[in-house]
Amino acid sequence: MPTISERGKIMPASPIRKLVPFAEAAKKKGVKVYHLNIGQPDIKTPEVALNAIRNYDGKVIEYSHSAGNESYRRALAASYQKIGINVDHNQILITTGGSEAILFALFSCMNPGDEIIIPEPFYTNYNAFALTANVVVKPITANIKDGFALPPISEFEKVITPRTKAIMVCNPNNPTGYLYSKEELLQLRDLVLKHDLYLFADEVYREFCYGGQEHFSVMKLEGLDQHAIMMDSVSKRYSECGVRIGALVTRNEGILQSALKYAQARLSPPSLGQVVGEASLQTTQEYFSEVYDEYINRRDFVIDALNKIPGVFAPKPKGAFYAILSLPVDDSDRFCQWLLEDFSYENQTVMLAPASGFYATPGLGKDEVRIAYVLKQEDLRNAVKCLEEALKVYPGRK
Amino acid sequence: MPTISERGKIMPASPIRKLVPFAEAAKKKGVKVYHLNIGQPDIKTPEVALNAIRNYDGKVIEYSHSAGNESYRRALAASYQKIGINVDHNQILITTGGSEAILFALFSCMNPGDEIIIPEPFYTNYNAFALTANVVVKPITANIKDGFALPPISEFEKVITPRTKAIMVCNPNNPTGYLYSKEELLQLRDLVLKHDLYLFADEVYREFCYGGQEHFSVMKLEGLDQHAIMMDSVSKRYSECGVRIGALVTRNEGILQSALKYAQARLSPPSLGQVVGEASLQTTQEYFSEVYDEYINRRDFVIDALNKIPGVFAPKPKGAFYAILSLPVDDSDRFCQWLLEDFSYENQTVMLAPASGFYATPGLGKDEVRIAYVLKQEDLRNAVKCLEEALKVYPGRK
Repeated sequence: MPTISERGKIMPASPIRKLVPFAEAAKKKGVKVYHLNIGQPDIKTPEVALNAIRNYDGKVIEYSHSAGNESYRRALAASYQKIGINVDHNQILITTGGSEAILFALFSCMNPGDEIIIPEPFYTNYNAFALTANVVVKPITANIKDGFALPPISEFEKVITPRTKAIMVCNPNNPTGYLYSKEELLQLRDLVLKHDLYLFADEVYREFCYGGQEHFSVMKLEGLDQHAIMMDSVSKRYSECGVRIGALVTRNEGILQSALKYAQARLSPPSLGQVVGEASLQTTQEYFSEVYDEYINRRDFVIDALNKIPGVFAPKPKGAFYAILSLPVDDSDRFCQWLLEDFSYENQTVMLAPASGFYATPGLGKDEVRIAYVLKQEDLRNAVKCLEEALKVYPGRK
Repeated sequence: MPTISERGKIMPASPIRKLVPFAEAAKKKGVKVYHLNIGQPDIKTPEVALNAIRNYDGKVIEYSHSAGNESYRRALAASYQKIGINVDHNQILITTGGSEAILFALFSCMNPGDEIIIPEPFYTNYNAFALTANVVVKPITANIKDGFALPPISEFEKVITPRTKAIMVCNPNNPTGYLYSKEELLQLRDLVLKHDLYLFADEVYREFCYGGQEHFSVMKLEGLDQHAIMMDSVSKRYSECGVRIGALVTRNEGILQSALKYAQARLSPPSLGQVVGEASLQTTQEYFSEVYDEYINRRDFVIDALNKIPGVFAPKPKGAFYAILSLPVDDSDRFCQWLLEDFSYENQTVMLAPASGFYATPGLGKDEVRIAYVLKQEDLRNAVKCLEEALKVYPGRK
């Protein structure tokens, strides 16, 4: 019998996936489970996007251009220009979700064995994509006490080697909710220029910035035309995760050419998703305002409520819709499983994502969990109540 | 300025892509170009599929399960069972096009540096996927004189090394139109069992088999439960290339688990495409009959007409909608460019795919081209006429 590849064996399963059978078992017992563990928003997709698909009048669902429909790329470029990101449609490659944009960037910028520095905790799948591309992630630890601000540049300098090719940030950040400041990004600019590195920025949560601080894109950093690569996606912006439409945006001609070859190999990004994505650019400001108000209310409510629970600490996120909190528990993996397997309060419980899955350094995040505040406030209230009651009785409480 | 990766540099551009600027220039001059170069069928997508998308009533376009919607996988399994492929829904992973199924198989079965044997000429993008997965393609040359039948097993034996992990066939074949017989597949079965290799079969053209010979799936080969991996796609079957929905099908539990981890990393295959794919399973037999009749007429017409041109030889394809023909020319790359750049007949010309791009062995295919007979007969007639007239005046005629 032929053997599975080594890379297939070490490829990480989703850390949440291990908990899924326990959540299913809880539901079978009739327990209501509040899912704070995944970033699938409950927000409705804009009507203009849904109508575009309902009114689809094609007779043959054809391949699009490998780089995406030109009409979509032109409209997307115009939307970027409106927020001060000066790119034209030839500097945009439409991808199958933000995921594929990351893969294309890794393949185009890095050779097998090259290193990429990422502040941790970071989105788990960066690890999976790095493994896929056979590149090595070098984590720099951000601290919950600082609200997960950018670690000092001296920490980056310490891990830079001749194999280092790129630094990656997610801004606003999944899983921490941190919003990098212009000053922090300027520090990163100086660093990548000094060492001639690429700067990758996953900016899929760009519209989710709270408390007055504006989002600052890497595409606005002067002097980085050859270094900056932005990954984007419609998934969260318009609550259309399922259409699988993202974008790789850069002014580096060589990277665009290389990425296009990877894009040609898979022929085309999803055609129907592009119809949705292009129509979504017509989404009204009212929609965004409503979504914004909803999320800021959720954030304010949930973070305040969590911080009132004895032993819990949650820095206030300035962006996205995630937060990492520290809990008075022995091991958050164990605690999250216990919540589903052994606990319920008024026949309800809560599913959280253990934070260990977001750290590359073994042993970190053991008393932290990530929440996604993508539920309506009433559900968030019940979920927080479950957590509060659970911490009163959890046998592994510290 | 940071450098592009070595793999990004050696990644092949589509061989047709080089000709695109010449085709565009010809069109600008007012010349009508018949595209026999790409497999984008002109056949209409089934109404039942288009209606499913027009009637989409979701409010949020959500992620699906990473392996694809269970309802779709169950319906797809039932459709496989109807044609004698006994698999259940847990043995199917819905992928983003057939392309992703190939990538997931390569990543899950093979380590960097491992070798895969593929009869050439083969679909160009297999090379791109192999480069992406950092595996080595070992070609075995099939011959136009034999109609591109499976080369003798002794030829395979010659290139098997300790690094060989898999053999891949496309059946029916793109680019040759060859349909492997049950006997040929049994030979491959014995070979992979002898050397403990995986047998990959790209069966996306399964419904396109002409002349009475039935398609025989690798999933029907006895004793290969752990070895056989089938790649499938809705693209050609229902003329819905743009939905980007394929499938990886295997009974090998380890490979399914590994592939699922790659699937989890990219979260979900396209949700709208899955709606289309599932609805397409309701396509009537009348639709398939019409399509079948249309293609068999196109094939019979175009192959007969081509073989009447002095110096042209085209074996009659038994499947898919491609054919490779040999031409009396010095260099088909040069000829295909000349057709677009320097030739027209009654203000018309034809775009062909040079066959060199389908061979891994340098120098092969220099007097061959691939055609896709995806145009209506009237256009095919004009295209063949252009080719006939072109060969009369081409300066590099042999």
